[in-house]
Amino acid sequence: MRFIVEHGDQSSAARAGRLVLQHGEVLTPIFMPVGTQGTVKALTARDLQEIGAQIILCNTYHLFLRPGCDCIAAAGGLHRFCGWQYPILTDSGGYQIFSLAALRKVSDEGAVFQSHIDGSIVTFTPEQIVGVQEAFGVDIMMQLDECPPAQATKSAIAEAVNRSLLWARRSYGAWSRKESALFGIVQGGVHLDLRRHSAQVLAELSLPGYALGGFSVGETMVEAFPVIEQTASLLPYDKPRYLMGIGFPEDIVTAVGMGIDMFDCVLPTRCARNGMCFTSQGRLKLRNACYKLDQRPLDPACSCYTCRTHSRAYLRHLFMADEITALTLMTLHNVSFYISLCGRIREAILENRFSRFAADFLDAQAKGDPADP
Amino acid sequence: MRFIVEHGDQSSAARAGRLVLQHGEVLTPIFMPVGTQGTVKALTARDLQEIGAQIILCNTYHLFLRPGCDCIAAAGGLHRFCGWQYPILTDSGGYQIFSLAALRKVSDEGAVFQSHIDGSIVTFTPEQIVGVQEAFGVDIMMQLDECPPAQATKSAIAEAVNRSLLWARRSYGAWSRKESALFGIVQGGVHLDLRRHSAQVLAELSLPGYALGGFSVGETMVEAFPVIEQTASLLPYDKPRYLMGIGFPEDIVTAVGMGIDMFDCVLPTRCARNGMCFTSQGRLKLRNACYKLDQRPLDPACSCYTCRTHSRAYLRHLFMADEITALTLMTLHNVSFYISLCGRIREAILENRFSRFAADFLDAQAKGDPADP
Repeated sequence: MRFIVEHGDQSSAARAGRLVLQHGEVLTPIFMPVGTQGTVKALTARDLQEIGAQIILCNTYHLFLRPGCDCIAAAGGLHRFCGWQYPILTDSGGYQIFSLAALRKVSDEGAVFQSHIDGSIVTFTPEQIVGVQEAFGVDIMMQLDECPPAQATKSAIAEAVNRSLLWARRSYGAWSRKESALFGIVQGGVHLDLRRHSAQVLAELSLPGYALGGFSVGETMVEAFPVIEQTASLLPYDKPRYLMGIGFPEDIVTAVGMGIDMFDCVLPTRCARNGMCFTSQGRLKLRNACYKLDQRPLDPACSCYTCRTHSRAYLRHLFMADEITALTLMTLHNVSFYISLCGRIREAILENRFSRFAADFLDAQAKGDPADP
Repeated sequence: MRFIVEHGDQSSAARAGRLVLQHGEVLTPIFMPVGTQGTVKALTARDLQEIGAQIILCNTYHLFLRPGCDCIAAAGGLHRFCGWQYPILTDSGGYQIFSLAALRKVSDEGAVFQSHIDGSIVTFTPEQIVGVQEAFGVDIMMQLDECPPAQATKSAIAEAVNRSLLWARRSYGAWSRKESALFGIVQGGVHLDLRRHSAQVLAELSLPGYALGGFSVGETMVEAFPVIEQTASLLPYDKPRYLMGIGFPEDIVTAVGMGIDMFDCVLPTRCARNGMCFTSQGRLKLRNACYKLDQRPLDPACSCYTCRTHSRAYLRHLFMADEITALTLMTLHNVSFYISLCGRIREAILENRFSRFAADFLDAQAKGDPADP
């Protein structure tokens, strides 16, 4: 893996870059659609291609439990299994063990938990999770980490930081397939001293990339952003920085200004399935009666298939009638909105007008949709 | 509307034809995917285009109740509302009143029923239903008819026949938009004398096309086929014949041999959502464990996107993981299978080898999938 910072913004920490991965190049800042179980919910691989997705995120925790490593190995790896020939990043499952599974025991050795699917007892160790991701043949793999909730005590968070650092070293030791780039994860909650320690120790490992984990675990973005900004500044300039699990469109714009290069989030897909649409004029709740006869596309500034083809009135009807097609069309738009937002951010950085772009974007988002008073 | 019989089979009643409609031409025999509420479930308009759908079916009953005629009128008609620019046939809602709604009263005047959506009391008359379909701007509209269940007494069925004939005459009288072709519906259950009477009276109206209704209401295909064959032979040769709501792939092949030109059925879409797949080697239940590691496409003889891109193992995983994408990919294949089946039937008719094609097809379907013992 190579990462090239192509251009740094003059009035912020924003940068435009290029990630060269085994299955293709990724232009940053980039949003990675979430395909937890090997598909982005309600979309097909060609939908993703068409809207310009360059890399997707899958989850080791979910895929390990179902369909299982034998099934993915039989297909010749995760790319072939999914029918997706472009880059894939897999999350390690650390976050999922602590949020989805019934946790039995965490020790320095690893985590023992009960599967949320069939209740079976499973052990994850840092070495094993590197091995699983290497066998998947992914382009970027995440280290196993411990993710305490935001309300955990500082000493519990400090313990999680130290354990995650230990696991980072062991992941590094187990890493053998160099086409799969290993990213370390900075933990430390909203405690700057812990984040600094975590970032410094990880930087010494000289990993291909670094993630900021442990956000969106219950804290507010007002609490999170100063920590994100400080932490990003502590990470090596020439390595990609990935802010895990964040966020709303305005959060992405803000975080790019703090030097973040990579994002993933379930919001565009999950909100789509709930009838909430992201547009250049803010969010739009499609079930609202004001859209019943609205012949405009979801976002007049958008050129996705949904916006080229269908009216708000039709899409609202599909939602009210519980049609699966509504979920597909809405997801297509929302993911397209996130991906094209990153493209516009990148363009603004390259043209030295990021700060103006960000201010205008946040302003338009705050104003909201004039059609929905 | 024009209908041209291009070629008649030498050893059966099968024929290949061409329907010229306001929004395009349709080559027969044809399968019309069911888009009850203005979308084929789990598919987009471009999915349908790609798999070669030439005409879709929507339902007046559903669309009248939701989103309502005002909403479709505001879009400039049903085609624009749905983003589908090719032919549309609407069913009148007769069948739905008798199967979905809480029926309050049927008289010669019309039907009074309670909406299955909000419980409101609604009246349908033959004239009004013609008016609704004309306002939708559809290519083919069906007359309002009365559909008794298969277990109804012969006298109840005879009454429904007479009422449906009365409604056919009144529909004809109310018909003003000639771009919307009005089809009459032959009723009569499995009683040949009633079917004959119904067909003869309708033929005198010289309507653009004729449907065989009241099948798939509880009787077996063994009971239905002799009646279908006889009834089809009583209808004018130069008018299209539409067998409503039928059936499995083998039923379609059989009915074409009896002179049927047009089909619709929820089986390919509904079965897809339940994990059942139609293939050139018979049906396949994708949840079965035998497909867990199966790297073959659903149907090696199929060239749809799903079969070009994904393995049975992957699709099975998506089903087991409750992914919406599974429903889309499976529906795409099943509908594609039905449409390409009709294309192959048509080719066989044009090349004077329909009987051989039908025998081979029924044979292969009966044998089933060798992978699933």
